[in-house]
Amino acid sequence: MRILVQKFGGTSVKDLACMKQVLEKVKKGLHEGFKMVVILSARAGDTNRLLALCNEYSPNPDAAECDSLVSTGEQVSTALFTMLLKDDGIKARSVLGFQVPITTNDAYGKARISSIDKTQLHRLLAEYEVLVIAGFQGISPSGRISTLGRGGSDTSAVALAAALDAFRCDIYTDVDGVYTTDPNIASNARKLNRITYDEMLEMASMGSKVLEIRSVEFAKKYKVPVHVRSTFSDAPGTMLIQEDKKMEHVLVSGIALDRDQARITLRNCPDKPGVSAGIFGPLSEANVTVDMIVQNPSRDGVTDMTFTVARKELKKALSIVESTKPNGMNGMEVMHDSNVCKVSVIGVGMRNHAGVAAKAFDVLFHENINILMISTSEIKISCLIEEKYAELAVRTLHDAFNLGEEQFEGEPEK
Amino acid sequence: MRILVQKFGGTSVKDLACMKQVLEKVKKGLHEGFKMVVILSARAGDTNRLLALCNEYSPNPDAAECDSLVSTGEQVSTALFTMLLKDDGIKARSVLGFQVPITTNDAYGKARISSIDKTQLHRLLAEYEVLVIAGFQGISPSGRISTLGRGGSDTSAVALAAALDAFRCDIYTDVDGVYTTDPNIASNARKLNRITYDEMLEMASMGSKVLEIRSVEFAKKYKVPVHVRSTFSDAPGTMLIQEDKKMEHVLVSGIALDRDQARITLRNCPDKPGVSAGIFGPLSEANVTVDMIVQNPSRDGVTDMTFTVARKELKKALSIVESTKPNGMNGMEVMHDSNVCKVSVIGVGMRNHAGVAAKAFDVLFHENINILMISTSEIKISCLIEEKYAELAVRTLHDAFNLGEEQFEGEPEK
Repeated sequence: MRILVQKFGGTSVKDLACMKQVLEKVKKGLHEGFKMVVILSARAGDTNRLLALCNEYSPNPDAAECDSLVSTGEQVSTALFTMLLKDDGIKARSVLGFQVPITTNDAYGKARISSIDKTQLHRLLAEYEVLVIAGFQGISPSGRISTLGRGGSDTSAVALAAALDAFRCDIYTDVDGVYTTDPNIASNARKLNRITYDEMLEMASMGSKVLEIRSVEFAKKYKVPVHVRSTFSDAPGTMLIQEDKKMEHVLVSGIALDRDQARITLRNCPDKPGVSAGIFGPLSEANVTVDMIVQNPSRDGVTDMTFTVARKELKKALSIVESTKPNGMNGMEVMHDSNVCKVSVIGVGMRNHAGVAAKAFDVLFHENINILMISTSEIKISCLIEEKYAELAVRTLHDAFNLGEEQFEGEPEK
Repeated sequence: MRILVQKFGGTSVKDLACMKQVLEKVKKGLHEGFKMVVILSARAGDTNRLLALCNEYSPNPDAAECDSLVSTGEQVSTALFTMLLKDDGIKARSVLGFQVPITTNDAYGKARISSIDKTQLHRLLAEYEVLVIAGFQGISPSGRISTLGRGGSDTSAVALAAALDAFRCDIYTDVDGVYTTDPNIASNARKLNRITYDEMLEMASMGSKVLEIRSVEFAKKYKVPVHVRSTFSDAPGTMLIQEDKKMEHVLVSGIALDRDQARITLRNCPDKPGVSAGIFGPLSEANVTVDMIVQNPSRDGVTDMTFTVARKELKKALSIVESTKPNGMNGMEVMHDSNVCKVSVIGVGMRNHAGVAAKAFDVLFHENINILMISTSEIKISCLIEEKYAELAVRTLHDAFNLGEEQFEGEPEK
């Protein structure tokens, strides 16, 4: 049984006219001989409207009840779309999270998928041409409806594609693929035909909003061929794939920009064992995610420590850091700065080629852009800079690595 | 475990202010030491809005998909109300039809309950003080969401009360009980403290809109004590009970009026075996419900046959009757009249007292109201009359049987 998974976001199903375009995509898959598994989000606006309803009735809505309520968004969109399929003479039915079942943990509002029942899905696929599955939702061990959090429908789609060993998972969205960088910043930004899972993970976590990061993790783990493409055109988009030989000579795939950064500097931190734990432990317990961390060499028994957090968590992070002072850090001085951003150079080619970092630092230096912090991984170099230089840095790096020019990266999938 | 079942209709949960009144009713039950099972309808207007959405997307919406969509109405109301309970510090959770589970047949849109899992409910009741259960919905043998049809939440409530052997099932509605007749017609109509299941069945089927008829059948079958009362007051309403000694001397309980009647008369019907079947068979196959039937004595091998149908089915019924003519009924003449209505005198006391029918005919005769058709059962006498006499007939009968006066019918339940 050849199975094609297609996922459509909220703007793709927002009204009857849009759903009719989706219908054509599904029929195209049927004509190509696939059994179709279609994952839908709620109609654009519905999820926000339902969340607002929760907040109207309760100052602090119970998470499980909120999930039961908010999951009705996908229940509505899947029923409506299945009606269209049936009116077109296609054997189809809607399948809700509990009907698959897609089992999750009980972290309501941000649940994680633990298993998907393949047997039941195969039985349904033997009976129907198209299964229209509600994204974003599952069922907890205690039998209650759970939701996967924002962007969860991407994860539903990739997880279902993995479970069903699908030929491909097409993620239809309102952009036509993954770009070398934000086209609003660099007008010569180019759509990538291919990108590796690892690069996409870096792009996604760096603020490239195309795919929810957990769906990319899932795709990587189960090697799901994912095709990110536009609902509103037939042009091929970007394929997410495993690293292969063809890609070796492509040094850098893209430049990511993350403005959601705030820097905290601790001056005169006592440099003794347990100090880092004394600061980052309480932050972690309060669910404050720390991104970059730099510690300067010690001098006279004290050191400077700098780290970044998301801007909306700055206030919380500062109060936690202040509260650690009584623990033998009285002389410590706390400073902060929100006018910073992070530019990242991403590419699997870095693994085998030296000099990418040196080149990046060099071109930023030539534009008089001061690098405040640096962090690197095998396939990424990130620099924290003053936010006013954000666009200049992105354009400069994009041009320095020739990302605006067509590169050989293999043929796109059809 | 003493369990109290409470059911609230759409107008009782239509907004936050109304839900807060419902909250008080539930807390009262808790204070009285009950475990509470609360059945909710969708918020007023939601079900109609969701049905309209189905019709916007499909000229003939798939029944199963429509049920999946429309059932979100109760999913929303139960989640919102449970949030209020939790905010008040009460251990509560919502339970959807599939979570109970309430199993139905697969007649989507008008499904019938086949079983309710008591074990699971008792397990939940051990853990929670209040279960907020979505009315109107269940799950079909193939695991799809089904709905019970209009007024189905009443049936959900009574069925759950029966399954749980509840102390009582309180049906909260926007009227304060069952009346001897429509107070808009007879200003001295009186609220009944008690009514038997059989009388209520006759009242319900006669157009008394207080309770859905299937819920009364369920209550009768499982002897569920049902209390019909108002959400917006604390006054006792009407208890539905089994017939008992106390009620024997109450001759007549109420007068029902059904305006939804149309009469069809077949003149010169050949009077030979199989003719009735030749007419009523095709009507039944087309789902046209025939109410009263009268056949005159035969004369010269032909007879007149008169029957009534609901007004909206008159056209359909007429075309079916015309289509039977070729089958040896060529000389038959078909006439019809929509300006008729049915008044019924209802009371279990009739079983043991003669003369109720004679008295009813007599008082109508004295008002010059011509009786067009008569049908009777053990506890009911129905007369078809011209519609223009409807109110006069109801008032006359109501007074003739002294229904405006307080009668001993036992103490109301608190």
